[in-house]
Amino acid sequence: MLKLTFLGTSASVPSVERSMPSIAVRGKELYLWDCGEGAQRQMMKYKVGFGSVRGIFITHMHLDHFLGIYGLIETLRLSNTFSQKLAVFAPRKFGDLLISRWDFLEINEIRQGLLLKDSEAAISAFKVRHSGESFGFVYKEHDKLKFYEEKAHRLGLAGPMFREIQENGFVKIGRKRVELEDVTWTKTGRKIVYTGDCLPSRSTVEAAKGADLLIHDATFANEFQKEAEERNHSTAEQAAEVAKEAGVKQLALTHISGRYRDAAELLKEARAVFPNTIVAEDGLGLEITRKEDE
Amino acid sequence: MLKLTFLGTSASVPSVERSMPSIAVRGKELYLWDCGEGAQRQMMKYKVGFGSVRGIFITHMHLDHFLGIYGLIETLRLSNTFSQKLAVFAPRKFGDLLISRWDFLEINEIRQGLLLKDSEAAISAFKVRHSGESFGFVYKEHDKLKFYEEKAHRLGLAGPMFREIQENGFVKIGRKRVELEDVTWTKTGRKIVYTGDCLPSRSTVEAAKGADLLIHDATFANEFQKEAEERNHSTAEQAAEVAKEAGVKQLALTHISGRYRDAAELLKEARAVFPNTIVAEDGLGLEITRKEDE
Repeated sequence: MLKLTFLGTSASVPSVERSMPSIAVRGKELYLWDCGEGAQRQMMKYKVGFGSVRGIFITHMHLDHFLGIYGLIETLRLSNTFSQKLAVFAPRKFGDLLISRWDFLEINEIRQGLLLKDSEAAISAFKVRHSGESFGFVYKEHDKLKFYEEKAHRLGLAGPMFREIQENGFVKIGRKRVELEDVTWTKTGRKIVYTGDCLPSRSTVEAAKGADLLIHDATFANEFQKEAEERNHSTAEQAAEVAKEAGVKQLALTHISGRYRDAAELLKEARAVFPNTIVAEDGLGLEITRKEDE
Repeated sequence: MLKLTFLGTSASVPSVERSMPSIAVRGKELYLWDCGEGAQRQMMKYKVGFGSVRGIFITHMHLDHFLGIYGLIETLRLSNTFSQKLAVFAPRKFGDLLISRWDFLEINEIRQGLLLKDSEAAISAFKVRHSGESFGFVYKEHDKLKFYEEKAHRLGLAGPMFREIQENGFVKIGRKRVELEDVTWTKTGRKIVYTGDCLPSRSTVEAAKGADLLIHDATFANEFQKEAEERNHSTAEQAAEVAKEAGVKQLALTHISGRYRDAAELLKEARAVFPNTIVAEDGLGLEITRKEDE
């Protein structure tokens, strides 16, 4: 399974409808991308395996993106169930902003590139244009080698030969030599990309190439494009342009300004450029599936 | 008007139903007592004049009682509407835990006694037994001198004499001398007391004497009295005993442990000792009225 849950989808200031930015990414492990105020309660509300989080990733050091980390960590401490370290990845400044001693935290400064690997996927960071050090994140499942089973069996592969051919790149069956590439294909892992707050940029297009899902800052509609630029944010249309250029499968707009009670305007402007767009709402769960998995 | 709104009523850890401790006190001005994570969004949800807060009072430095202050202050900063200083009263440690520069804050270290006065009421602090420096708060309206209007007129008081008698303590009407105390009575101000987290204590009984409302820690039911004591909290029954001894008019139980989905057990045990008890819920608004005001 690979499932996202939007815990908060507001911009800067919460509203009754939208909590502060935070996204739960559930693959083999559970990760949080940003952790705005109230994230722990949103996890309870939307039944995101509270307490099982293995890593928290903060895009940038604006308060609306990380204030929830204190309460969440304190609750984890009180629950006393932490047997392993909890990895926090954040821009440099974060280490100075800890307001209590939490010995089970392992604080890592974010740099571009690979941040963390588990048995199923890797999370890496890329720079975005916002303010100070701001990053986007890529969750990418490891590619997997798959056998054309029927063909392999027809060619005589059996039992330990499957391991042998993977180790050596070929296997001999009587006089025949079977090459690995003739009986296998690569199943590319699913890929999710989250920009955090940002202006549209080349780096996002590159990072998002071929992603199953791009989650992009879409604070404003077109009429406030100038304001978006001044504040280092994107319009919904700009997010759609990035999605189109990167050739992603789906775009989710988030970081929605409080002025949009109804985000229909944002959705319309984005869909005109990139039809497979949705607007994230608090509590929205998205399972990332592909036709070939079904 | 004197109205309370319970913004959060949980203990230590939030639940889907209960947010972290915070109470809005709306008299002439708006004050917050404690400001747990999520307080600003609760203020929006329950329509507590967001942005008009004039003072924030933190009972003690456990994270569940003050984490919401950062987000709230940051939102006030972003809204850019702060023309006057915002007073924060907190135990000494708070000054070291600010994670950003907020120039419009006026940080005051809490000491026992008077903390703040506005034109309608005063807020003071008293020590409670919890951990480290922990305080409870008293909101007390100023007493007001009221005239027995009919009697005053009958005795001949008119126009500027009302001011004169208040200034001098008497007034001469012809040969008669009218004493202030013969034509006036004192309307005592309404009084609300909040303990924050605490064991039951003498200091609370003293502070709460004759209060219209006492809001008391009631983390556990009787069966967990030992745990309550170990953790420096009160049972509902202990809260009721304090209310009874202090002769308050009403008791509101708060800081309800997450183990009580339904607080009926707490209510039952408290009411056996002090019948006029309620259990606070998030969003509960209580207007403090007296028969003579009606």
